[in-house]
Amino acid sequence: MTRTVTSFDGKDGPSPFGEFFADAEMVEATGNRAFVAAMLVFEADLARAQASCGLISHEIGEAIAACCNPDAIDRHELQRRATLAGNPAIPLVQLLTETVRRKSPEAAPFVHFGATSQDVIDTAFGAMAASARAIIIARSQTIMSTLAGLADTHRASVMPGRTLLQHALPISFGLKAANWLGSLLLPFQRLRGTTLPGGQLGGACGTLAALGTDAPAVRRALVGNALPWHTNRAGFQALSADLGVLTAALGKIGHDVSLLMQTEVAEVIEGAAPGKGGSSTLPHKRNPVHAVAITAAAIRMPGLVATMLSAGLHEHERAVGGWHAEWETLRDLLRIAGAATFHAERLLAGLEIDTARMRANLDLTSGLVMAERVAFALAEPLGRSAAKTLVEAACREAIAGKRALRAVLADKRLPAAIDLDALFDPAGYLGESDPIISETLARWQALQR
Amino acid sequence: MTRTVTSFDGKDGPSPFGEFFADAEMVEATGNRAFVAAMLVFEADLARAQASCGLISHEIGEAIAACCNPDAIDRHELQRRATLAGNPAIPLVQLLTETVRRKSPEAAPFVHFGATSQDVIDTAFGAMAASARAIIIARSQTIMSTLAGLADTHRASVMPGRTLLQHALPISFGLKAANWLGSLLLPFQRLRGTTLPGGQLGGACGTLAALGTDAPAVRRALVGNALPWHTNRAGFQALSADLGVLTAALGKIGHDVSLLMQTEVAEVIEGAAPGKGGSSTLPHKRNPVHAVAITAAAIRMPGLVATMLSAGLHEHERAVGGWHAEWETLRDLLRIAGAATFHAERLLAGLEIDTARMRANLDLTSGLVMAERVAFALAEPLGRSAAKTLVEAACREAIAGKRALRAVLADKRLPAAIDLDALFDPAGYLGESDPIISETLARWQALQR
Amino acid sequence: MTRTVTSFDGKDGPSPFGEFFADAEMVEATGNRAFVAAMLVFEADLARAQASCGLISHEIGEAIAACCNPDAIDRHELQRRATLAGNPAIPLVQLLTETVRRKSPEAAPFVHFGATSQDVIDTAFGAMAASARAIIIARSQTIMSTLAGLADTHRASVMPGRTLLQHALPISFGLKAANWLGSLLLPFQRLRGTTLPGGQLGGACGTLAALGTDAPAVRRALVGNALPWHTNRAGFQALSADLGVLTAALGKIGHDVSLLMQTEVAEVIEGAAPGKGGSSTLPHKRNPVHAVAITAAAIRMPGLVATMLSAGLHEHERAVGGWHAEWETLRDLLRIAGAATFHAERLLAGLEIDTARMRANLDLTSGLVMAERVAFALAEPLGRSAAKTLVEAACREAIAGKRALRAVLADKRLPAAIDLDALFDPAGYLGESDPIISETLARWQALQR
Amino acid sequence: MTRTVTSFDGKDGPSPFGEFFADAEMVEATGNRAFVAAMLVFEADLARAQASCGLISHEIGEAIAACCNPDAIDRHELQRRATLAGNPAIPLVQLLTETVRRKSPEAAPFVHFGATSQDVIDTAFGAMAASARAIIIARSQTIMSTLAGLADTHRASVMPGRTLLQHALPISFGLKAANWLGSLLLPFQRLRGTTLPGGQLGGACGTLAALGTDAPAVRRALVGNALPWHTNRAGFQALSADLGVLTAALGKIGHDVSLLMQTEVAEVIEGAAPGKGGSSTLPHKRNPVHAVAITAAAIRMPGLVATMLSAGLHEHERAVGGWHAEWETLRDLLRIAGAATFHAERLLAGLEIDTARMRANLDLTSGLVMAERVAFALAEPLGRSAAKTLVEAACREAIAGKRALRAVLADKRLPAAIDLDALFDPAGYLGESDPIISETLARWQALQR
Repeated sequence: MTRTVTSFDGKDGPSPFGEFFADAEMVEATGNRAFVAAMLVFEADLARAQASCGLISHEIGEAIAACCNPDAIDRHELQRRATLAGNPAIPLVQLLTETVRRKSPEAAPFVHFGATSQDVIDTAFGAMAASARAIIIARSQTIMSTLAGLADTHRASVMPGRTLLQHALPISFGLKAANWLGSLLLPFQRLRGTTLPGGQLGGACGTLAALGTDAPAVRRALVGNALPWHTNRAGFQALSADLGVLTAALGKIGHDVSLLMQTEVAEVIEGAAPGKGGSSTLPHKRNPVHAVAITAAAIRMPGLVATMLSAGLHEHERAVGGWHAEWETLRDLLRIAGAATFHAERLLAGLEIDTARMRANLDLTSGLVMAERVAFALAEPLGRSAAKTLVEAACREAIAGKRALRAVLADKRLPAAIDLDALFDPAGYLGESDPIISETLARWQALQR
Repeated sequence: MTRTVTSFDGKDGPSPFGEFFADAEMVEATGNRAFVAAMLVFEADLARAQASCGLISHEIGEAIAACCNPDAIDRHELQRRATLAGNPAIPLVQLLTETVRRKSPEAAPFVHFGATSQDVIDTAFGAMAASARAIIIARSQTIMSTLAGLADTHRASVMPGRTLLQHALPISFGLKAANWLGSLLLPFQRLRGTTLPGGQLGGACGTLAALGTDAPAVRRALVGNALPWHTNRAGFQALSADLGVLTAALGKIGHDVSLLMQTEVAEVIEGAAPGKGGSSTLPHKRNPVHAVAITAAAIRMPGLVATMLSAGLHEHERAVGGWHAEWETLRDLLRIAGAATFHAERLLAGLEIDTARMRANLDLTSGLVMAERVAFALAEPLGRSAAKTLVEAACREAIAGKRALRAVLADKRLPAAIDLDALFDPAGYLGESDPIISETLARWQALQR
Repeated sequence: MTRTVTSFDGKDGPSPFGEFFADAEMVEATGNRAFVAAMLVFEADLARAQASCGLISHEIGEAIAACCNPDAIDRHELQRRATLAGNPAIPLVQLLTETVRRKSPEAAPFVHFGATSQDVIDTAFGAMAASARAIIIARSQTIMSTLAGLADTHRASVMPGRTLLQHALPISFGLKAANWLGSLLLPFQRLRGTTLPGGQLGGACGTLAALGTDAPAVRRALVGNALPWHTNRAGFQALSADLGVLTAALGKIGHDVSLLMQTEVAEVIEGAAPGKGGSSTLPHKRNPVHAVAITAAAIRMPGLVATMLSAGLHEHERAVGGWHAEWETLRDLLRIAGAATFHAERLLAGLEIDTARMRANLDLTSGLVMAERVAFALAEPLGRSAAKTLVEAACREAIAGKRALRAVLADKRLPAAIDLDALFDPAGYLGESDPIISETLARWQALQR
Repeated sequence: MTRTVTSFDGKDGPSPFGEFFADAEMVEATGNRAFVAAMLVFEADLARAQASCGLISHEIGEAIAACCNPDAIDRHELQRRATLAGNPAIPLVQLLTETVRRKSPEAAPFVHFGATSQDVIDTAFGAMAASARAIIIARSQTIMSTLAGLADTHRASVMPGRTLLQHALPISFGLKAANWLGSLLLPFQRLRGTTLPGGQLGGACGTLAALGTDAPAVRRALVGNALPWHTNRAGFQALSADLGVLTAALGKIGHDVSLLMQTEVAEVIEGAAPGKGGSSTLPHKRNPVHAVAITAAAIRMPGLVATMLSAGLHEHERAVGGWHAEWETLRDLLRIAGAATFHAERLLAGLEIDTARMRANLDLTSGLVMAERVAFALAEPLGRSAAKTLVEAACREAIAGKRALRAVLADKRLPAAIDLDALFDPAGYLGESDPIISETLARWQALQR
């Protein structure tokens, strides 16, 4: 009944989705080849660690290590055997052993000596996670630097602040950029600070029993002070969650940019590039591309983070499914978070900002957006209640008569101290925007130290 | 700053995870090549539909259709362009147009005429989903047939029924198999019955305006009576949910088999095969493999189903991210549900069942598992309260004295009508197991008609 | 160490979130009292079923049924005992038995006779789900009727179609409403059509063994032809998924309304009501409220649907955790889907539509939104390539010179047959909007029959 | 059309689920009353902060603060108004203002002065989160202390280590407990170390503009150095994720205990208590209760964590739905994580451990579980390959002949140095169990310092 398993992925060819969810750098760090290479690094390191403490001879150790070359392994054969073996380590060890046996028969029995499949695979995932994290951190730093620059540059670029998608009060684009930056600080800090799972070495049951009295020395040489963590998935879960929070914060940026790019708003626009963001049928369109990719990444992450947590109910000393469910999920999490940074870096580097349009949009409410300020200014001479009543009536009058609030108010008898010109200047009602920007930049600086 | 995008996936080689989560047949149906091929089928069908109603000439239609060959498209170039284009349809149309132009310059302007990117991509996903569903349905039928056979064969194979992982009452293995089958009936029925999204044809904004007065005829020829569904994602969401429910039901089977395979239980075991289920270090182990893969699939699906639902908040006539988040997610859902059926088919076909061990395990509680029956039998002569009191006391005595409940009861004065031999025969206390099995089989038969 | 468990919820008082996520009607159907009442209905029905087939006397049956009154049960005591008992059925049966014993001592031993905790609880959830579904279906019908009316009324209300949040082509608001309606058809149909889990009766292990030879008659009388479904969770999972898809479709409506209410767009606005949608500090704002609640509901559902699927890996004949994880989750799903319908009904009933603003917004692109149409019109006299080149150049000129596309084109030599006035009338470029609306309405009509 | 909204929750009475998912202490910290109280603390603190820097008079500040009493607010009225208001802060401010007006009319206009709804609500959630975290941390410490004790006490309690639910090698129960403890270290550390969102004060648009020149002083007095975080949800997301990882680690403990409690395994059992863990129909059962509750909690968390991440795509300066979706979700996350700790504390405190059964279960494989050790011991005299071949043959012989592996080997000619008695003593093959336990305990000690 069982159909012959044929290899496929290697012949399935390039992804039609380009680098939308997995950019070349991330694939290099987390791809199929990278994974096999990382498993082989484990086997080489294990052999060398065992040689270093005399468990095997130096020659045997080097003979094994010399064969740990991903290009010397038949990865199609590995793929074929992996299904029934139940995991990729078993066929890897078989294939590596065959290779070693051909070159140094006496070394063959010492391949993978004392280790278990999960030792190899978890260590390989740990290494891929570390590489991917480094890329993501580096990109995040670029992103945050760009945001810091935008925040500083646009301290005075007034624009409508929008709550529930309604104009509320003036803010500056600098404040918006600072808030984007501010949302990245905690996930960046956590992502950078969290302890990634180190190398895994536990042997069949997490006791390293097979290594006998050499176990402490081999363990120290191979994984330092890491304890076996076969069923302790907190490290990968925490990493996944950190990536999830980071991507959510990036997603908010992408989402905001899409909203700001709306035809009706048009305050920012993604930078143009040949072949970028056109429509297949509408000549006038300039679609968001990076913003869309970031948003899509943010939509995809939560379900994957949930899977990493759900997978955590490992049975006893090795799970029946929970561990296996992590494999591709963790890789997807790394790639998609990586893609979010890939696109965010490009989005922000090329962002075109139309400060004139921002200022102009503030007038869309004919001054209503300044009503709060006027009410507070009138509170001093008139008392808070009377001021509020007066301004609310003026707002209603302005809306009903389709007039500017300023004009309506100018018709009224207002205390002499009231300077409508000044009150209706949105630049004068940015409140704490400036110190908030400065404080956010300072925190970002502090994080970099 | 922007690094050159290099192609990667096609060079990344075979997956080290074998067919654990994506078997060859599913990859053939849903892989990168299949997707490009499906997009080209759309373009060919569109051209032919337009020719059939006279919008373009027959020659132009055939000239376009003739170029719609996935092997004539430079898929690496497609990959390179897709990232900045924002989706794979734009570069596909470009590349196809270039090909057509070389062969029939006059046909080139009519490639993709009146359609939009989402028309191509959604139609291609719909086609892949239909292929994948057909595979999954066929496999499910095999799985259900096997289960029906197990249910029928093992009507009398008594074993412990376990609630909260404690022995509760006797059941038969046939009943367990019937319950596994029963859980598949609804998802199978829904999956088979649900209306998959048909072809998509809406043009830039879902109005087909570009096709002018030919729109109705082209639409009818291409997609039948399907209405444009650019922002109507219920079809893919419903499919995803159905796959999720199906996989959950399969996952329960895998989970149960893993539990039944426990060293302490040993009532069933996965069939052996060369290279299957060994340990990389322990010679005596025979690990579950298919059961593990099914369980892992069931752990992975819920997060992906959630993503399909989360992605549904499409903006206006075309989403900024929600649609894009569906792409790989839907493909993963199809593949992982497919993998669950792939492994379940193999698991059940090879399942080794140890009915002697099942019977023997029933004795592990020294007869306590029959206590309910004895209490009910004694209720007639003694009254329910007195019977319950007597049996509970006997149970306590049996546990405290580490004796068999039957022996404890034999020491007591029981009404003459009480036949302990008969009462302690688990085969006599299977209740409605048999009619439940029969009724489940009948429902399964009815579904097949 | 164990602190005394005190009752709390009943004293915790009203929810500060009002009916945002759980409206009064849904709480009445799915609340704590409703659940206890539903469990008691099971116990009464069970006793009557057993009396009807002579397993117990008519008097005993009625004596039990008479005590099945939620107000006669000390629900605080039930709460106190439920934690350690492990589920609410055990203390319910205890309390009910105590009540029965006080009134008819001889009936007490027959309370809950032959049933298991899960029989009671699953049946109660099934009943609550049925009530909640009926409410949701009724509301959905109102919602869909309102949408049908909007679609029909606004066939000619032209507005910008927006893809990726950019103006693309003209559509009508009627088409938008029809598309909203169209997205509800499938989930409505599935929700209405799906088979809800019927009553549960399986006894301790799903075999009904305790009921002896009366089992078939009791089962028929109590649950009709339903088979025990202790570990078959497909019914609740399918219901949850259907609610998830329905809520996603409603969420898209809420999301669109929020976007259409933007200060810059202002094409629709939620109806005003006293105490509705104000800002705690800004006098001029009119915030979306129902739209926000619907969107929030749509954000909350996917995670809960995922939980229902994840919970499905039940162990053997009764789960250790998976079943328990369903309880509050299912209730939340029912309530939140209910809330989505509650708010959607009110949102749409009160929606204020500004067709003048819709028409005016179409001019924001100075005619670029009509570029596709002009290019297609010019294709006939000039050929498609020349037409496209000409229009693209005109678009660039219009954008660069900040002129209307129509004016730019008027300056050019165009074939005499070209009537720019007609071409730039968006009402003439709605394509298949009208038939799509009609067909959608027809499908909705057909569903109601 | 709009039905009158009636209050309900306060009359819906006690939860039939007892403290399964929300224990009394957590409800006290996060319940409806607690939430209203926390919102009022914000209003009182705000008034006092404004008085402290002279923005309002000391009398007015105290007059407002004096009214901030949850029992003086009509919470049913608050509930009634909250739905249409769109959030609970608006009616709270209304009701509070009415109360203040009755007592000190001149203070009424200064209630909530310069703040926005989200300031109140986010601050209240932050306070509830802080209370809940403190409870969870305290309970986690108790749990970890108990685990440390178990790990230390049971260093020599040998038991089968199980991988993929198959016996693999001997471990000690102390190692299992140490591994449970080890999995808690990272989530505990992160949960304790993460920066919770502080008080929120941003005013309508996050600029504090309404507070004018007093803004810095009010901000400092009220929230210290916290910057407005209206759209920065990383704090709550990170907290949610930490709770998710912690609960997953607890869930693994619950899951393991359920597995160890299986009738066939019976190595540990939950402590008995009156009214605990009985079956409603089977007298002999002793069901897991706390283990089940923990597992159920672990199943429920991932979906909720995903929701917190999905909700993060806030629009501009205040979200249309994303923020609202957080409210009940965050509360559920706190309660369910709290419940996991509640039940884990009780589970571990009462755990009964049967070390004799553990030792006896090791013999279930008739010595096969020691095969790896024998093979390694024979490798020295015979060489690794010969040793492996010999042992594998002996294993096959033992399995086929249903003999003990030790007996099979005793029949063979083995080198004199081979001491089968010693080799088959599982206590001698625990490898690094002891140092791993010690190191884990040391890390736990270090965390407490």
